[in-house]
Formats: sequence, structure tokens, C-alpha cells
Amino acid sequence: MKTEFEFIKNIRQKYSLGKIGDDCAVLPKDSKTDLVVTTDLLVEDIDFKLEWTCAEFVGHKSLAVSLSDVAAMGAKPVWAMVSIGVPEKIWKTDFVEQFYDGYYRLSNKFNVEIVGGDVSKTPDKIVIDSIVAGEVKKGKAVLRSGAKVGDLIFATGELGGASGGLKMLENGVRYSSDEKVWKKHLLLRQLQPSPQISDGEFLQKNKFATSMIDLSDGLSSDLMHICHASNVGAKIFADKIPFDKKLNSLSNSFEEKIDFALNGGEDFELLFTINPKKIFRIEKTSENRNFFHIGEITANAAIIELVSGRKVEVLKPKGFRHF
Amino acid sequence: MKTEFEFIKNIRQKYSLGKIGDDCAVLPKDSKTDLVVTTDLLVEDIDFKLEWTCAEFVGHKSLAVSLSDVAAMGAKPVWAMVSIGVPEKIWKTDFVEQFYDGYYRLSNKFNVEIVGGDVSKTPDKIVIDSIVAGEVKKGKAVLRSGAKVGDLIFATGELGGASGGLKMLENGVRYSSDEKVWKKHLLLRQLQPSPQISDGEFLQKNKFATSMIDLSDGLSSDLMHICHASNVGAKIFADKIPFDKKLNSLSNSFEEKIDFALNGGEDFELLFTINPKKIFRIEKTSENRNFFHIGEITANAAIIELVSGRKVEVLKPKGFRHF
Repeated sequence: MKTEFEFIKNIRQKYSLGKIGDDCAVLPKDSKTDLVVTTDLLVEDIDFKLEWTCAEFVGHKSLAVSLSDVAAMGAKPVWAMVSIGVPEKIWKTDFVEQFYDGYYRLSNKFNVEIVGGDVSKTPDKIVIDSIVAGEVKKGKAVLRSGAKVGDLIFATGELGGASGGLKMLENGVRYSSDEKVWKKHLLLRQLQPSPQISDGEFLQKNKFATSMIDLSDGLSSDLMHICHASNVGAKIFADKIPFDKKLNSLSNSFEEKIDFALNGGEDFELLFTINPKKIFRIEKTSENRNFFHIGEITANAAIIELVSGRKVEVLKPKGFRHF
Repeated sequence: MKTEFEFIKNIRQKYSLGKIGDDCAVLPKDSKTDLVVTTDLLVEDIDFKLEWTCAEFVGHKSLAVSLSDVAAMGAKPVWAMVSIGVPEKIWKTDFVEQFYDGYYRLSNKFNVEIVGGDVSKTPDKIVIDSIVAGEVKKGKAVLRSGAKVGDLIFATGELGGASGGLKMLENGVRYSSDEKVWKKHLLLRQLQPSPQISDGEFLQKNKFATSMIDLSDGLSSDLMHICHASNVGAKIFADKIPFDKKLNSLSNSFEEKIDFALNGGEDFELLFTINPKKIFRIEKTSENRNFFHIGEITANAAIIELVSGRKVEVLKPKGFRHF
């Protein structure tokens, strides 16, 4: 069966759709600015479960995933639209109002204006489509395709937390404000993720990132997207992966934690590559930002190697995919 | 239970969302141009049924409804994104490929570039979100709010055909290329509607339309949106409503035909208002365009009167709504 990535590649070729295939499409706005746009579909029981979350968190996350795509281009988000379809039994509750509260609160935090949307009925499940547009200096959007052999690979934050939170939800743990700090932390990484807008803009404005993507599907899959787009390979050092520290309370297994980080996804940190000559300057200017060096770009096109001490294994992309 | 229109009005006020509530949001693009954007959610078994249509028609219609919103602003559509979620059983067929064929073919007709989208899994039903952006001269987008007392009300084409087609589908008639001409015509008005891009741009560029909306929900409801936005009322002359001529083959009942036209929706013609002083000029310049004068704007805010000979009745908005 075709994967969704194969499908997208096919229609890109079939119809010569040159603007699809990155985190956002890049479109000309005015003489100095490009507009970047993205859309994300979230479906109940596929992307979220009502027994695991609440309407406000769903609203927050619907916007966060699209903001994260804008961040991955190094752009500043400007406006958003959101379409929501719900069955009649949900319409009769205050779900949609609370959903908008969560969506609005996050939009307001980043000065993103909600400019439109649609409301529809569905036979059964909730569906949401979130659209965000951002602005970036003309020609300066950071693409997936700019990684060069020898570039270093960085992540903007700790990984695996969202996946740990998902495991807890699957095991029956629910979010509650009086839960232990580590439990709340992991659950919120899953249910109420933070898009890394500030880091994305910082990396773009300072010309640090040669390529960038947001970690939505999982490091192994998302890094492979960079490798494909840039026609390169990559090496990841297992002992440099910045596991979410709170994962230590959930699991003692290194294998499990590395699986969370590599294949779990939804951390919504940014993964970027940087020319090694710029390391001194990024360390000097990044101040209180905490970027983690986890690997480097190689010439082995479409091969990702995981280096653990003397052991080297070829990594299969095992991140989330729908099909 | 709240209607979707009340809900939208509420969130518009609650969060001061000044850009929502028209067919499209109007956003600044560059010094000479505004960008208009719209999004439409289509859900299987609510907005279309697989037993009534085919993947290519669904693709066509998904884009057409959003193009129609852009037309209603008097703008020229420029780019589109489309998100689609399908259950696994549909993914295994060529539905999504054929859907894109229909979507692409219509986009190509209007030189609209497909720049992005999303592909997702759903538990059961197909969902589609279509996003279209258009361009219009700065400050010249035609809003719903510009109708003035005394303006004449026009439709850009015949009405009721799409609703007649829907009735046929409900009665078991299916589209087939070797069906009778009138049956194919009515079914295609429902299944493969034509957005009135050219008329919308013509009306905007010549400054004819003081207000405009697309006829998606039905004349009675869509005209009420203009009345609310413009704080006016309206009078419709029953004998001037341009019924789709092919409806005569479907129904002998004037009452049924007027119900199709007023309350059926989905004709995707444009409804616009024009200052009576411009009638001579629009008649002179519209050449082969066929616009129908159906009524006039009155001072009775939020009251629509239907005039049939000497009889005047107040019309209730009975067009399509989800909730």
C-alpha cells in the first residue's frame, strides 16, 4: 500500500506542484516579504481522543501543530483560520466554545489574528483543519533542502516527552492539575505542545540554519525528510540525544527512551542543520536558548546511521504515519 | 440550540475578530493588492454521499465552493491548499488520486496553483478542507456590508437547478453520460458546480456591486446575510426569480420551484446589489453576461419580503444550515 509520503511525491510530480513538500508553502507577498502557509487536519480518534484530553487542549494543539510548521520555516506567524466539524451531540455541549478558547489563547500569545474558518456538522467524529500563515524576509525561508555534507545536526529542545505522555495516556493516566510534576509535564508535552516560534525566527534571522523541519512525526522520520530533500545522509549519536529529563521517572530503559525520541514524534521541537564554522557564533549569541548537537550530515544519501559507542546501525524511519 | 451563524457572531464579538463573517477574510498583501482567503470543510454523508457522486466530482466541488467565495469578493483566485482525510478502505482504492484529478482540473482552468495540503486517516468518513486565496485591488473587495436602501438586487444566473439535482439524487436518479440532457444538467449543477469567477471580477472591476455574496445556502438565507451585514431589508419579486429552465422537466409546481430557488442553495451563482443609477451602464457593458434583476433593498432592517403580484409575505431564511 502506498504511504502518504509516496502519494504526496506522486501528485507533486504528476501535476508539477513545485510548492508542496516542505513544512509550509512559500509564496511571494510583497517586494520584501514572503508568505508561508500551512494546513493541518486533526481527526478525533486518530490524532486525539476525547477521553484523553479536553476541548481547550484540542484547540491549543490544533493551532500549535500549524504554528510549529511556520516556525520550521523560520517565519513569524501572522494569521490563522480554523475549520471545525462536530457531530450534533458535541454541538449541544460547550465543546466548540472551549475549543475556541484554547485556540484563541495560543493565537493571542503569538499575536496571530484569527481571520476566518468554517463550522460544519459531521456524522460522528470531530474534525479540525487549522491553517496558519506567516511572514519571512523574501528568499530567506529555511527549507528542508539546504543541508550540506558536514553540517551539524541540532535539536532545539528535549525529545521523547510527548511520546512518553502518549504512553501514559494509553496506560490510563489522565491529566489533572494536582498530579505529580513529572506526570503533568509529560502529559502536557503530548496534549498541549509548544511551537518553537522564537527559536525558528532566531535561527533564520541569524542565518544559522541551513535546513530545518519540525519534529512532528519523530526524529527518525523527520530527519529522513531533510535527507531526501537535501540529497544527503545523516549520523546521529545515541549518547547525545537530549531525552526529556522527566522520562527518567517513567522508564529506566534506555531502549524505550530512545524509541520515544526517535520514533514517537509530537515533541514539536525544531530539527536544524548548521555549518560547523558557525558553531562558535551560535554558542555566543544563543544566550539562554538550549540547543542540542545530536549528529551530522553525511554523503550517504537517504541513509541515517545511529552511532552508539562503537556500534553503528542503519536507522529505519519509524515515526508516525497515517498510511 | 444555537445556530452556526449565532455561534460565529458570538466568537466574532467575544474575541474581537473583525475579519471573520464575510465570504472571505480580506488581508493586506502589498501596497496595491489585498489577499482574500477562505476555507470550506466538506464532510461525507453531510455535504456529499459516495453513492450519489464520484471522486472526481468531489474534488471539483471541494475547490468550486471555495472559488465561489473568492468570486463573491470580486477577487481573482491565485492559490489553493487542500487537506483530505480518508478511512483506510478508501485509501486502498484510487479515490484520492481521482479526487486530486478533479481538484487539479478545476484549479488549472482558473490558473490557481495548488501550493499545499495535508493527508490524514479518519476512522470512517471522508473529510476535506479546501482553502483558496485570491487577489483584489487594495480596498476594493466587495463586502456583504455595502448594500444601500434603493439598491437593486441581481443574481448572476439561473437558480434552483442544484436543488432540483439534489431532489433527483434523493429519488434515486444517478449521473450518467448517456442520460437525458435536462437530467444531466440538473445533476451537474449539484455535483459539479461552476464558480462565477469572471462575473465576480467583472462586477468588482467596474464598481457595479455595492455588496455581494455567493448563493451557497439558498437565496433566502444568503440575502439575509447581506441584510444583516448592511443593516437593511429586501424585497424579492417572485415572478422575476430566474428559475433554471431545466426545472420545468422536473416539476410543474411553481411552489416547488420557488422553494428550490429560495431555500435549496448550492447554485453558486452570485447575488449582488447595485445602485440603480448604474443600470444603464451595466446593461451596456455586460454584453453576453446574463444578470437577473430580482428585487431591491429596503429600509426594513432584517426583513425580506416576497412579492407575488399583490401578495406580500415576509420570508423566513430557510436555506441550508448545519445546526
